[in-house]
Amino acid sequence: MSGPSPRAQRVERVRAAMAASGVEALLLSLGADLPWLSGYEAMPLERLTMLVLPADGDGVLVVPELEAARVEPAPEVFELRPWAEGDDPVALVAGLVGGRRRLAVSDRTWSTFLLGLQEALPGRQWTVSSRMTGPLRAVKDAAEVDALAAVSAAADRVAAALLGGEIPLVGRSEREVSDELGRRLLAEGHDRVNFAIVGSGPNSASPHHQAGPRRIGPGEAVVCDFGGTMAGYCSDITRTVFTAAPPAELAGIYSILHDAQAAAVDAARVGAPCEDVDRAARERIAAAGYGAAFIHRTGHGIGLEEHEDPYIVAGNRTPLVAGHAFSVEPGIYLPGRFGARIEDIVVATGEGPRPLNTASHELTVVG
Amino acid sequence: MSGPSPRAQRVERVRAAMAASGVEALLLSLGADLPWLSGYEAMPLERLTMLVLPADGDGVLVVPELEAARVEPAPEVFELRPWAEGDDPVALVAGLVGGRRRLAVSDRTWSTFLLGLQEALPGRQWTVSSRMTGPLRAVKDAAEVDALAAVSAAADRVAAALLGGEIPLVGRSEREVSDELGRRLLAEGHDRVNFAIVGSGPNSASPHHQAGPRRIGPGEAVVCDFGGTMAGYCSDITRTVFTAAPPAELAGIYSILHDAQAAAVDAARVGAPCEDVDRAARERIAAAGYGAAFIHRTGHGIGLEEHEDPYIVAGNRTPLVAGHAFSVEPGIYLPGRFGARIEDIVVATGEGPRPLNTASHELTVVG
Repeated sequence: MSGPSPRAQRVERVRAAMAASGVEALLLSLGADLPWLSGYEAMPLERLTMLVLPADGDGVLVVPELEAARVEPAPEVFELRPWAEGDDPVALVAGLVGGRRRLAVSDRTWSTFLLGLQEALPGRQWTVSSRMTGPLRAVKDAAEVDALAAVSAAADRVAAALLGGEIPLVGRSEREVSDELGRRLLAEGHDRVNFAIVGSGPNSASPHHQAGPRRIGPGEAVVCDFGGTMAGYCSDITRTVFTAAPPAELAGIYSILHDAQAAAVDAARVGAPCEDVDRAARERIAAAGYGAAFIHRTGHGIGLEEHEDPYIVAGNRTPLVAGHAFSVEPGIYLPGRFGARIEDIVVATGEGPRPLNTASHELTVVG
Repeated sequence: MSGPSPRAQRVERVRAAMAASGVEALLLSLGADLPWLSGYEAMPLERLTMLVLPADGDGVLVVPELEAARVEPAPEVFELRPWAEGDDPVALVAGLVGGRRRLAVSDRTWSTFLLGLQEALPGRQWTVSSRMTGPLRAVKDAAEVDALAAVSAAADRVAAALLGGEIPLVGRSEREVSDELGRRLLAEGHDRVNFAIVGSGPNSASPHHQAGPRRIGPGEAVVCDFGGTMAGYCSDITRTVFTAAPPAELAGIYSILHDAQAAAVDAARVGAPCEDVDRAARERIAAAGYGAAFIHRTGHGIGLEEHEDPYIVAGNRTPLVAGHAFSVEPGIYLPGRFGARIEDIVVATGEGPRPLNTASHELTVVG
């Protein structure tokens, strides 16, 4: 006999988490909770799509009539409830919630819908669904690890082209290089490009720099941080390359960063609290005198969303378990001058940390 | 003497709308209100970016420290307030709100942030910012109309390639055609592809069909609805083509649709309520016996967002004013069999409706 489907199993685990939290209904719109449970992703538009999943009853997916035919194959575990133009989908959801009082809404649901629901359902207690789904989604099953490995390998091929000098840098604008990274992500099998940061020269010190018109010069650091989605799962990789051999000071900083990143990966062992992975990188960078220049956490979970649980950050005492997948990406930034970051995706396993990215970390000079 | 900048003028108009609504502070995160006022667009991530704009004080843009350098050129009309990793940005926003009680949050702000703010600021009255910004953003100034005309012309060039048979259809999958439409949007100057619906054969009856593996055959209708963003402004165009001359019944339906779309454009005159534009299309389709097959509104406003005010829908009595920009896109759908839609972007002007798309509406047979 076949057991319940993977999706049906997820629903049962979510119901158990709801029971533990006292949440009586989950209301899932934008974000990855809905596709994780149903295989269907809501369109990010003004017509409401929302799964109403009561703790004590069957789930109902409320969807605009003109999108109902997109829900294919139909969710195995939910009833479909299309609403027609002119109907009030908030009232429809409120009716499905009924008298339930403790409600959780998906984190990325637009505020306009939450405010509408709060008006239609006064006096309820609200929380976010990630309180229940986050810890469950954070632990990837074997098929999810395979999907992350595949999309990471595709990103690695783009990183290898960058490190191998196949992507010209000097004389091109950051924007042109960013566009090429994006095109290569698609050519390597990604369905969608999520971002392609290219920060050159002084812009390398801006961690989330938006690739712009600046022309890349000789003798500069270039931080390239890019990723996309393939078969639903996200890639995210950073490599910092140099357009000429850097002076000793910057080569030294790169070496510190290199060692800190490796130390953090090595610390990512089952049972270690997430914050210990952050600390492993931070202590090394601080010991070298650059603690104030490492202005962000060490990493974030990754899966159906680019950033999700578990966060690799001071204060997160969640112990790593096998199947946790996350980035390890320390950086050192000297404002206006120079910045560098090295990032891989890593999965915690019973046999130790498994990096999904394998492109070289060595200091690389390219044209 | 030079007057206030366009952005400063927008802020003053928003303040007037806030005063009229009794809203004491605007809290803008995701969505187009923030870039419309500041030129800066929040990253759609878990680190909060939020402009706090009090009715009675200066605006403050709360932004993650690692993204602060992206805010360039710095907003003319707001102070920048970076927050460091480990800080609590919700508490920072709550402190800036202070004792103000009537608050408006941007429509697309993630629920996780709204719930955090509601906890930090108990007992407040909440509404959405679009109550104030929607009617203002809906009326485009001359520069915005130029931007919409330019992006629409770029989409038109892709539509012309489709209608001219430059994009092979028969034997290719919907997905392949969708990808080509996207590549062509980029090649014609778009910065980003927002969507490229390709619905063939029975899928043409699914208005928001997701382009998939289905191979396009001979003798089919193919609905292509695509758009993207260029210099911040959105395009959106639909053409339905046929891979062989259709039978008389379908050609007749296309002719009804063609006339209904033209009638709706013609009805889009300054002073006419939005719902009259919808009615002009709907009456013609209903008179021909296909009223039940036109399952969506006639159109939506367009600008910095794909869908925004004014909505061209029954019940919207807002009178059109010069500068309103919106889609006119009736459709007729026979489930499982056939569908067709024709869509142009139109601007209301004192000289009558101005379609920004000019690609042919004639029944077109392509390979």
